[in-house]
Amino acid sequence: MDLKQELSKRADIFNIKLGEYLKNGQPKTLYDAASHLPMAGGKRLRPCISMISCESVMGDVKRVMPFAVALELIHNFTLVHDDIMDKSHLRRNLPTVHIKFGEPTAILAGDLLFTKAFEVMHEISDDNSVFKQMNSGLINCIRDICEGQQMDMEFEKKHDVSEKEYLEMIRKKTAVMFKFSAEGGAILGGGKKEEIRALREYGEYLGLAFQIRDDYLDMSSDEGTLGKDIGNDIRNGKKTLIAVRSISNAIGDDRKLLEKIFGNVDASDQDVKRVYDLFKNMKSIEYAKNAALDYSNKAKVTLSMLDDSDAKQVLIELADYSITREK
Amino acid sequence: MDLKQELSKRADIFNIKLGEYLKNGQPKTLYDAASHLPMAGGKRLRPCISMISCESVMGDVKRVMPFAVALELIHNFTLVHDDIMDKSHLRRNLPTVHIKFGEPTAILAGDLLFTKAFEVMHEISDDNSVFKQMNSGLINCIRDICEGQQMDMEFEKKHDVSEKEYLEMIRKKTAVMFKFSAEGGAILGGGKKEEIRALREYGEYLGLAFQIRDDYLDMSSDEGTLGKDIGNDIRNGKKTLIAVRSISNAIGDDRKLLEKIFGNVDASDQDVKRVYDLFKNMKSIEYAKNAALDYSNKAKVTLSMLDDSDAKQVLIELADYSITREK
Repeated sequence: MDLKQELSKRADIFNIKLGEYLKNGQPKTLYDAASHLPMAGGKRLRPCISMISCESVMGDVKRVMPFAVALELIHNFTLVHDDIMDKSHLRRNLPTVHIKFGEPTAILAGDLLFTKAFEVMHEISDDNSVFKQMNSGLINCIRDICEGQQMDMEFEKKHDVSEKEYLEMIRKKTAVMFKFSAEGGAILGGGKKEEIRALREYGEYLGLAFQIRDDYLDMSSDEGTLGKDIGNDIRNGKKTLIAVRSISNAIGDDRKLLEKIFGNVDASDQDVKRVYDLFKNMKSIEYAKNAALDYSNKAKVTLSMLDDSDAKQVLIELADYSITREK
Repeated sequence: MDLKQELSKRADIFNIKLGEYLKNGQPKTLYDAASHLPMAGGKRLRPCISMISCESVMGDVKRVMPFAVALELIHNFTLVHDDIMDKSHLRRNLPTVHIKFGEPTAILAGDLLFTKAFEVMHEISDDNSVFKQMNSGLINCIRDICEGQQMDMEFEKKHDVSEKEYLEMIRKKTAVMFKFSAEGGAILGGGKKEEIRALREYGEYLGLAFQIRDDYLDMSSDEGTLGKDIGNDIRNGKKTLIAVRSISNAIGDDRKLLEKIFGNVDASDQDVKRVYDLFKNMKSIEYAKNAALDYSNKAKVTLSMLDDSDAKQVLIELADYSITREK
């Protein structure tokens, strides 16, 4: 099975649906700004997870499409607003929405994507109680994402972040959307209660594995040299699992080094290298790699109760991919 | 009947409900930022309209409260984001959310209020089809508000805005929320189809009257001297009904004056005064006053089909107030 092919097959189906939905409206500039990011492509991971999850409980994937669109619109709404907050200039190799359209229109474009997501949810052609359940689930997701993003911003200014706090942050900021994508796909696919629960857990573990692998990739360096991003993350005090683990466990001079350098924007290249070497020597980078592996394994274990199917196999390979991917 | 007393009586009931709903969450800073504006008071016009509308069809006002809270949360969400777009520093005599909490947290606080509005909608204890209808109505409102705000921003850079375009803008930006407040109150109050339609129309006319009265108040000057705000509006090319009417009808030298001065940030005090005098001489200020009066009358006419009640009387007096208020 070729995972990449399996995903892009579904992404193609999804993109047609998304394109239909992001038809133009007025004022044109607002609708152009709102479709800028969603139409720029991307892996469509969340929609694909919802589709495959639906298939894995032998559901009809057509029934999941409005939900898949809503997931992608919400994901893009958060990206548009996050890019303003983080002052990011590029995303998917294109200028971010606020760089291209100005900040006021970018704020509105995010708000419009948010609105459109709830609009498309009304197309879930199910009985009203399922609609209510799904709508409620989406609301809870967005609330968690807002809280997680605020935690992430606050952590940058906080030295002592515990591993537990870090996990709560990525659970809210990243994993809930994966969780709800898998859960929602199973609900709309008419899955049994235990199947829905298994897929919900799968989604959460998968999201945690993905996020921690991101932390690992950001901090791993093939050439033994320090990339610009690694330096920036250390100087900005970015609370990755690697940093959090190191700060929690460092004692004596190591602790002092971290207090002095980690999060110090004026740190020299030499000092940054010392922090990086400390992360390595404390085996925090390896720790993060293993934590991701652990979550990926847990994700796969939860799938064992599902009947065998091609879709189940794709989900298993997706869990493998989450910890082997190099970008 | 004392209108102020009638409104504040209902606002007090509403505020208790709102307070219960805006209980604290985590991270505290995010929840503090989200409740900053809604807890700072305000007239609660939209919630009050929904409550009185419900009463006017002999409905139980308790049933409308979650909807009233949702209306106020959405109104506040738009204010928080608008203040960022407009770089406003003060609102309700307090620093705006982005001034007090920083822009990233203010964007998130707006997003959270948006989410919370949809959350409280789930407490509408009606059958699911009414819930779906109300949820759909709220979504349409927010989409219109986004579009109206974008139009408003674009109009500042556009010289020739027609009266029709202006009316579409204020209809979307302001009147739809009034319309939906009145309509939703009637639906939840169990009103008859014709009552719901009458109250929907009432709400829209009332919203138009309110907004045009705002335009009039911004441009009317008791002392015959030009206030700072009037000068700013002329220099920024703010498209009020007064400006739009004048631009559409001016010919010859008058037209040239407007093209040169209106929207010219460097215009002298003398030139600003010439534009203001032109607005007056063309009777555009009077025109706006009369347009508001006309909408207020239309609002009252639509009420005639309702059975007489105290609530109906409050709605009538609210329509009078919309065009007599001085601030």
